[in-house]
Amino acid sequence: MNRRVRTGTVADKARERILEVAEQHFRRIGYQKTSVPYIASELGMSPANVYRFFPSRDAINEAICERVVNKVDEIGVAIARANVSATEKLNRLLSAVHHHNKVTLVNEKHMHDLTVVAMRENWPTIKAHIERMVKIFETIIREGVEAGEFDVEDPAEAARAIKSAFAPFFHPTLIQHCVQHGEDTEAGLRDQIRFILKALGKSG
Amino acid sequence: MNRRVRTGTVADKARERILEVAEQHFRRIGYQKTSVPYIASELGMSPANVYRFFPSRDAINEAICERVVNKVDEIGVAIARANVSATEKLNRLLSAVHHHNKVTLVNEKHMHDLTVVAMRENWPTIKAHIERMVKIFETIIREGVEAGEFDVEDPAEAARAIKSAFAPFFHPTLIQHCVQHGEDTEAGLRDQIRFILKALGKSG
Repeated sequence: MNRRVRTGTVADKARERILEVAEQHFRRIGYQKTSVPYIASELGMSPANVYRFFPSRDAINEAICERVVNKVDEIGVAIARANVSATEKLNRLLSAVHHHNKVTLVNEKHMHDLTVVAMRENWPTIKAHIERMVKIFETIIREGVEAGEFDVEDPAEAARAIKSAFAPFFHPTLIQHCVQHGEDTEAGLRDQIRFILKALGKSG
Repeated sequence: MNRRVRTGTVADKARERILEVAEQHFRRIGYQKTSVPYIASELGMSPANVYRFFPSRDAINEAICERVVNKVDEIGVAIARANVSATEKLNRLLSAVHHHNKVTLVNEKHMHDLTVVAMRENWPTIKAHIERMVKIFETIIREGVEAGEFDVEDPAEAARAIKSAFAPFFHPTLIQHCVQHGEDTEAGLRDQIRFILKALGKSG
């Protein structure tokens, strides 16, 4: 039993080291140019050894993508737990995700490119991330309904509608389009948040 | 004076014929494979003659793209003029544009591809089309406010918010993503319309 646990831990550590090195290279030269032999040589191991932990390059890509989107999930979870009204939580969350994705595009272009491809190809990592975000929206909406802030019949449906309504502000491809064409997304974001809060039946 | 008018008419007809032939080929083999010499030979004229009417291949692409998006504008104008409530107009318009764009993707893939590139590259044709659509939304919202159906402070702002909120149902790239991954957009569309009507403060 003990041995199995230890083996698991060793494997976890090896996976972690591979991902650390892979992520460094993804950030520097992009995921398309980062080869498994290169990652392996940096770690002083054989490519075959890397493949013991990740069956393919795609599996490494997916795992790195998961790290990238996990940061967005963490923002969502932290805001959902903040000691403020549901309205303020939604306000902060919608702004924070937009700004985080925009900063990723500007400062971490290679990671942005990875998420663009992941979204286009519907990687399971992205699907799971979107589901988690919709769940966070739903939780905040339920809270707002209980507090009398929102008037919503079906919080799950409203959460999905919010996800769709913010596609231009969240979706990496659409953000990139705005930034490339010099559009100011800030005023639009504020208006969109106000409009969506009205759909939630926020009084006042 | 007369002569100028006639010259204008002749030029218009030549442009029209060039676009007819170009569009046929765009539909059949795609805009990227349709060359100016090919269009010219089909019309029994020289490429130089085509360039008299269109300064570049890009100008032909833009003009064909304009024809494609004009069809969407026409749908919008027709629905805006219908003898129904503003709520019903918005309902019909949002559904009709989604379905039109989805049908274009499925039945006229080459034309869909043209609009994808046009959107990505922010062609003036697309910008003008989006502005016209937002204006149609605004007109309908103003009508709804006057009729007591909607409660909206700033119809222009609400119109832009609706445009953003329907990106996943209008934007050719996002529709393509849904269709490719077998997602059913119909239920989502109905929910989104209901949600957005609520943001417009529709009572009942």
